[in-house]
Amino acid sequence: MNNLTAIQFPEFPVPQNSDLHQRMQFLVEIEKLKLIYRQNVVVDGSRAENSAEHSWHIALMAILLLPHSDHAGIDLLRVVKMLLIHDIVEIDVGDTFLYDQEANKTKAGKEMKSAERIFGLLPAAQGDEFRELWSEFERRDTPDARYAAALDGMQPLVNHYASKGLGITKHGLKVQQIIDKKKYIATASLELWEYSLTIIDKSKNMGLYLP
Amino acid sequence: MNNLTAIQFPEFPVPQNSDLHQRMQFLVEIEKLKLIYRQNVVVDGSRAENSAEHSWHIALMAILLLPHSDHAGIDLLRVVKMLLIHDIVEIDVGDTFLYDQEANKTKAGKEMKSAERIFGLLPAAQGDEFRELWSEFERRDTPDARYAAALDGMQPLVNHYASKGLGITKHGLKVQQIIDKKKYIATASLELWEYSLTIIDKSKNMGLYLP
Repeated sequence: MNNLTAIQFPEFPVPQNSDLHQRMQFLVEIEKLKLIYRQNVVVDGSRAENSAEHSWHIALMAILLLPHSDHAGIDLLRVVKMLLIHDIVEIDVGDTFLYDQEANKTKAGKEMKSAERIFGLLPAAQGDEFRELWSEFERRDTPDARYAAALDGMQPLVNHYASKGLGITKHGLKVQQIIDKKKYIATASLELWEYSLTIIDKSKNMGLYLP
Repeated sequence: MNNLTAIQFPEFPVPQNSDLHQRMQFLVEIEKLKLIYRQNVVVDGSRAENSAEHSWHIALMAILLLPHSDHAGIDLLRVVKMLLIHDIVEIDVGDTFLYDQEANKTKAGKEMKSAERIFGLLPAAQGDEFRELWSEFERRDTPDARYAAALDGMQPLVNHYASKGLGITKHGLKVQQIIDKKKYIATASLELWEYSLTIIDKSKNMGLYLP
């Protein structure tokens, strides 16, 4: 639970049991994702990046970088849907820093509960579709999910480098620690993984990460 | 021109003329859209909404509200692409408030120049695709563009109501002024337009807009 549960919305138009009403309840609830802040910063360092704008960014990465996927049969619309919804569970749980070992132990269960609540606001068929897409993304057991996860993993590296480490240097991350967490990118695209390694190396040389 | 032009990124990996390099230059440049602030606010009123998170929100609206489109042949992936990129031109121009008549007179020319610069960072075929999608969105002359524009027009109304007017009441907008600017929503979906009218009416009753 967090302070976002205190935000009350005014009553939306009836009929309350219509599909449109349920969809609008969901679309208003997810306004809160704009208030979930990450460890990374926007590029002038003025504030933390939030999970909504991060999701926008990686959805566009998926569209642009498709030619670099190693798998020929990616369903781009499915991938974009996954990326647009992948962090919505954070509304109840908050963003869990990838390198926080303790917090990551209890993350999955909490996020599952959040998925039930938030996707449960939708008409059943749409809620099921989103819950399944989210679950597939988390499992990374299909080419679509692996490609989606690769972009989610790569964007922070690019952001750290572009923002010259404003949000990340203080964490004292080690290169090997980052490689261990990110090497799955290679299961989606060897080219993007090699590019990521180059960015990691340049970032280390700039003092953003420890050797 | 704005202060975003002062933001310098470190050099990204070579080869500089490769398609991947050009795509990454674009993906880093659009980090700046997270720094383009709108008149609307996030739902706790703590800060202005930015154009990147707004774009995320309406892309998800497009996915969820497709059953309410009056046109059966919408290409959802095209619509989502349009919405994810529709505000990127604001990086050079800033967000133009819909109800600012003076600023809207010179908006089109400035945004066209910005589109040339920013989409011009991409490999030619992809840059052309994005420029054409952006232009189609602006012209609203296809069912895909009309549906996309309807969501772009509807989201602020929902945001004003959900945030209880925190960002908008000060502008003293009149109901008729809003209806004139938003009535094109009906060309994409009569149901969504009727819903919008209900929200506008409820907002007026809450004191967010003037009669």
